[in-house]
Amino acid sequence: MSETRSIFSGAGAPYADSDGALPQGPYASAGPVVFAPALRERILDVVITRGGTVESRHRVHAAVVDANGTLLEGARDPHTETWWRSCAKPFQVMPLVRSGGMERLGWGVSQLALACASHGGEPEHVAIAESMLAGIGLEEGDLACGAHEPLSLRGARLLRESGDRLTRLHNNCSGKHAAMLARAVLLGEPTSGYEQASHAVQRAALETVAVWAGMPPEQIGLAVDGCGVPVFSLPLANMALSYARLAHASTHGDEASRRILQAMTSHPFLVGGSDRFDTRLMEAVGSNVVCKVGAEGVHTFAIIDRGIGFALKVEDGSQRAQFVAVLAMLAEYDGLPSPLPESLREVAVRVVRNTRGEQVGEVFVSTAPLGAYGRA
Amino acid sequence: MSETRSIFSGAGAPYADSDGALPQGPYASAGPVVFAPALRERILDVVITRGGTVESRHRVHAAVVDANGTLLEGARDPHTETWWRSCAKPFQVMPLVRSGGMERLGWGVSQLALACASHGGEPEHVAIAESMLAGIGLEEGDLACGAHEPLSLRGARLLRESGDRLTRLHNNCSGKHAAMLARAVLLGEPTSGYEQASHAVQRAALETVAVWAGMPPEQIGLAVDGCGVPVFSLPLANMALSYARLAHASTHGDEASRRILQAMTSHPFLVGGSDRFDTRLMEAVGSNVVCKVGAEGVHTFAIIDRGIGFALKVEDGSQRAQFVAVLAMLAEYDGLPSPLPESLREVAVRVVRNTRGEQVGEVFVSTAPLGAYGRA
Repeated sequence: MSETRSIFSGAGAPYADSDGALPQGPYASAGPVVFAPALRERILDVVITRGGTVESRHRVHAAVVDANGTLLEGARDPHTETWWRSCAKPFQVMPLVRSGGMERLGWGVSQLALACASHGGEPEHVAIAESMLAGIGLEEGDLACGAHEPLSLRGARLLRESGDRLTRLHNNCSGKHAAMLARAVLLGEPTSGYEQASHAVQRAALETVAVWAGMPPEQIGLAVDGCGVPVFSLPLANMALSYARLAHASTHGDEASRRILQAMTSHPFLVGGSDRFDTRLMEAVGSNVVCKVGAEGVHTFAIIDRGIGFALKVEDGSQRAQFVAVLAMLAEYDGLPSPLPESLREVAVRVVRNTRGEQVGEVFVSTAPLGAYGRA
Repeated sequence: MSETRSIFSGAGAPYADSDGALPQGPYASAGPVVFAPALRERILDVVITRGGTVESRHRVHAAVVDANGTLLEGARDPHTETWWRSCAKPFQVMPLVRSGGMERLGWGVSQLALACASHGGEPEHVAIAESMLAGIGLEEGDLACGAHEPLSLRGARLLRESGDRLTRLHNNCSGKHAAMLARAVLLGEPTSGYEQASHAVQRAALETVAVWAGMPPEQIGLAVDGCGVPVFSLPLANMALSYARLAHASTHGDEASRRILQAMTSHPFLVGGSDRFDTRLMEAVGSNVVCKVGAEGVHTFAIIDRGIGFALKVEDGSQRAQFVAVLAMLAEYDGLPSPLPESLREVAVRVVRNTRGEQVGEVFVSTAPLGAYGRA
């Protein structure tokens, strides 16, 4: 994809961090990306064995793409279109960052990390979301998302022990919503209805996703996400391209990209929570991998210094396969520390135990079909 | 499969209900079954939509077989081999029933239903399991299964409120284990080690499964189940045949089959629990459908008066797809009441809602691939 190679060819390209100039960043004029066939193919399915044969199998589709738009590798169908869910968050907050909104609000890395988060609803997350709203003169009731039980076990336990009520601030997307409300306030747009696809905040989010994904916005599917705002449907390869570009741009002078990735990788707890996979991964790997979970088995991540983006979808939406597949892909690209820390080994090498505590099977990446011999 | 047609051709065939004579029942000498190609094929995959397109897809393999061994219908691979898990319970208890053990123990339908159960660990289940053990001079500690949180929400809540400790009696298989211990006692075999594949109780269970499934026992795979006893691997078509034969035999003079199915269908609560699918189904359908869940997406069931058996496996092991697929198959064979009672409509017609309570998608049986348009 040579049309994107020239983006960073001139040193110190003029990216303005304020409303108006180059609002979508370095890829704003790069045009649609057409992928060549994958350089390599692999199987990334995750199987569960019992007694050495495969009892269940999760099919995994995946794409690995570099910032030039080269499809380095595909698993099953790397062009499968699916809903990007929470993996889009870095791009949904980007217009606020790029327009100088963070400075005008006095927000720093904590607020930015929470805006990109699928957080665990722990007190730390809730407090930041609440203060973000307070800073723009709003409150919980202005959030368009509904309440749901905190995603992290610690969040659920602390809420129960506190006797406090469950609020919309506990919604894993409350940081994203607070940032969307802030963007509406700064634009002078109504905050009521900010979740509608026709609102300026959501139109800018769609345009941002389209630019970084290398797609015309009209080719991106729209529906309603779990938290009530628009959700985007696009091919896995374009999701991977977005993260590859974000990584590459962050190390090549694009300040908005750098700040978003720096916030996420330096505050893994705020992006997830005490028992959340992305948190565990980013804490173990350090600042060179950004990783973002989405619902229904979608995941997008990048190795930052190499500008390589990854996107995968577990066809059946299962988390049981999702994290194992993420780790397998990162391992293939030398994106994991060696030896693997215990916190990740628990996820990467999963053992099936029965109620007597005996190991009766394993969960791992394999090509074996149902009923076939797995590994001893 | 004409070799099984003659089994019931002579009226009043001599089935002995005591040790020795025809210990495996009417199919003991029927020999291995070879299936002809399926008469019909269908897709039984379950998809989850968002905004009218398919977000996730669960592949479902299935077989529909009659008591003569005719493969009436297949979905994907009806000969897929997988672990039968808890669906084997009616056959694991059959040697006890057929040998006259129930009478010798003074056990009735409650004990028999619990022996066939994957129960919810509710007080009623625990009390029967405990009394079964007491009746043979044993106690919780003699169970080879481990303890696990009660499967039903009510069971978990009542245990928590009671302040009592979690025991092996709460294990969903405790009734099966108590019946296996009873069989060991009646045989004069050691109760210690009854869970080992080499124990007489487990050898008889394997032989029973083999006879009813129409397979040589050596072709049935063995491993360790979630509760510590042997688990059986066999093709879906043979699972379906077993249940078809069980249903047919129960209405054609085989007293052991009749008693097992009568216990299960007349005590749905004991076979499952207050919020368990099989219970909900059998309560709604009446006494003509027997239905048994297994872990990892396997399910076996039968329409009793027609002698039709069904087996399905959700390839990825998900319950989200499993119950929807069971209902779709039963509906196709007119095995469900019309109109569908609310308790089943909740399962059959599943709506995906976001945290705002808005409907954003559906869960239903469809041929559509990922990313394709589902239904509005």
